[in-house]
Amino acid sequence: MSIRSGIPTSAFWAGRPVVVTGGASFIGSHLADALVALGARVTVVDNLSSGLLENIADQVASGAITFHEADLRDAAATERVLAGADTVFHLAAAHGGRGYVDLHQAACAENLYLDGLVFRTALKSGVRKVVYASSGCIYPLHLQGDLSVDLLLTEDLAGPPYDADGMYGHAKLMGELTLRAMHQEYGLKAASCRYFTVYGPRGIENHAVIAMMARALIRQNPFEIWGDGTQVRNWTYVDDIVSGTILAGEHIDDGSAVNLGTTERITVLEAAHMICEMAGYQPEFAFRTDMPTGPVNRIASFERAADILGWQPGTLFAEGVRKTFDWYLAHRDPALLAQNLDQLLTERGVTPGGASTGDIAPDTVPAAV
Amino acid sequence: MSIRSGIPTSAFWAGRPVVVTGGASFIGSHLADALVALGARVTVVDNLSSGLLENIADQVASGAITFHEADLRDAAATERVLAGADTVFHLAAAHGGRGYVDLHQAACAENLYLDGLVFRTALKSGVRKVVYASSGCIYPLHLQGDLSVDLLLTEDLAGPPYDADGMYGHAKLMGELTLRAMHQEYGLKAASCRYFTVYGPRGIENHAVIAMMARALIRQNPFEIWGDGTQVRNWTYVDDIVSGTILAGEHIDDGSAVNLGTTERITVLEAAHMICEMAGYQPEFAFRTDMPTGPVNRIASFERAADILGWQPGTLFAEGVRKTFDWYLAHRDPALLAQNLDQLLTERGVTPGGASTGDIAPDTVPAAV
Repeated sequence: MSIRSGIPTSAFWAGRPVVVTGGASFIGSHLADALVALGARVTVVDNLSSGLLENIADQVASGAITFHEADLRDAAATERVLAGADTVFHLAAAHGGRGYVDLHQAACAENLYLDGLVFRTALKSGVRKVVYASSGCIYPLHLQGDLSVDLLLTEDLAGPPYDADGMYGHAKLMGELTLRAMHQEYGLKAASCRYFTVYGPRGIENHAVIAMMARALIRQNPFEIWGDGTQVRNWTYVDDIVSGTILAGEHIDDGSAVNLGTTERITVLEAAHMICEMAGYQPEFAFRTDMPTGPVNRIASFERAADILGWQPGTLFAEGVRKTFDWYLAHRDPALLAQNLDQLLTERGVTPGGASTGDIAPDTVPAAV
Repeated sequence: MSIRSGIPTSAFWAGRPVVVTGGASFIGSHLADALVALGARVTVVDNLSSGLLENIADQVASGAITFHEADLRDAAATERVLAGADTVFHLAAAHGGRGYVDLHQAACAENLYLDGLVFRTALKSGVRKVVYASSGCIYPLHLQGDLSVDLLLTEDLAGPPYDADGMYGHAKLMGELTLRAMHQEYGLKAASCRYFTVYGPRGIENHAVIAMMARALIRQNPFEIWGDGTQVRNWTYVDDIVSGTILAGEHIDDGSAVNLGTTERITVLEAAHMICEMAGYQPEFAFRTDMPTGPVNRIASFERAADILGWQPGTLFAEGVRKTFDWYLAHRDPALLAQNLDQLLTERGVTPGGASTGDIAPDTVPAAV
């Protein structure tokens, strides 16, 4: 294994034309910011189905980011935005937290089509590399069902046999397998980054950390927790996800996958306590065991990322959740949150106090994170 | 279980507008013929990447079949050909026998995109039902590795965990899962038919039975068999596949899957002996254990098809292979076969004596069976 610094280098990215799909969204917009800081020529494409123009507005205004509002399920649009790109960071997807992915299987299946179109277009357009936002959801569910096991998910544990987490996980898995085959048979360079339970500023309420902040801010009483609260997660701060993704873009060419996730084990109930304490709220908890919870025990090994990228997570949960809470306080109005919290927790394309865009047919299935 | 006749009914199909994708191909053209005979208004779409216009020429000339030469990876073309269809029989795929599917993983991955586009377009266009050509390749490989087991693959054995047969099998599995989710969440009617090792007239040389006929006709010496010849298959005659597919179109709405395959166990070596005897050829056999063989033991249960469709296979292998050999003798010139047999065995879009269309990038990946 070579020794890597773990720090993305502007020597690599300066002047390089890159595209970030889903780049107006939570993770995508942070990634775009970081690539701008490294000197890349950044184009963002997003259909604003759940991404927000405000996430990249300053960079667009200054000319640092070129923005295309386009739907990547449209072949002509996809061809247009990928033309001339050196590296495509493909984050656009029908995507959300547990409430979304469990309750929208058909929408998540659309990612098979979306990813296929982006990959084939990248190949036809002569894109040098595709960096793919994969997920911890590709790991076998049957490995993640026992809280007493201290298992760290290593990359090789992703089958076959495969037992991914719903259609969302299966579609991400197929994306990885497609890229690997395209590398082996057509020579396309590719890297897949398996994101684990990402949180941070610009997050949205259908992910657990932000959902809990919303509940605390509106003083939900009792404060609802999905499941019994014992589920273990390795919430990973968005800045760490971004640096790992860019490092994968520098160092991985062979279509292999790398975990980006911490080894910090936090239960949902522990997270709820921390967040309520920040909010100065001491609620009763109500355990909604009828709601989706995902696997009880999901923690990544980041050994491969450390070996080949020099990457390690730099932000402990206590620190990251503090930063996220400060951002959230400054950006959300509890009165608006209270108006449609249930929708916010399970849908995408919903804004606090706003209406759902709906999600019942392909025309309305959002394509960008 | 209701009692079904096992016979498709013209009362159901007469006047009904149907589309057969990949309908100029081997299975697709037989299906189109049968639907014409039942009185359906049949449209065939095929990009002729491996399908042959001659398979449907008479029906096109008589006006019984409306033919569109189009590529179903083109959204506008797909929308055009599906408009007004009541039922879409979706057979188009990057597809072939063992030589093709094992050696072309990236091309098979394109089926994820192709299927996704067809399904979303069907939904948007108000198509009533999609009948999907799935495959025995979706079954777990780890169940099919032991010749001493008398296992019959029943539909429920298809995981999770999933262990499908390469990208071809995974893409077919995703197609099934997508249709099931689209039925549950959007109400689209759908049926998946798991085809097992189909053979018959109009077959091509990258499938084993036709490959063996080609070897016998050109007096290949020694006669090559891929693997050690002990692999067991349930070769299923194309007429049976066609009747089962049409019955699924009549009786299955809920997106569930049904096996279409016999329970007759034939080894590759037995098949080779039968075919050589028909050809009046007594060769030495050479066992190419370096070539792809697939699982050693693959046999379907057709109990579900019998229960819900009244279907059972009507053609024994000895009878079907005789019919197929008669057709093959009348349609192939051994001198032409000898010119490019190796290509014929592993590629698609290749004709005896003709050149390969090549298969190295998405533009040239054939889309129709």
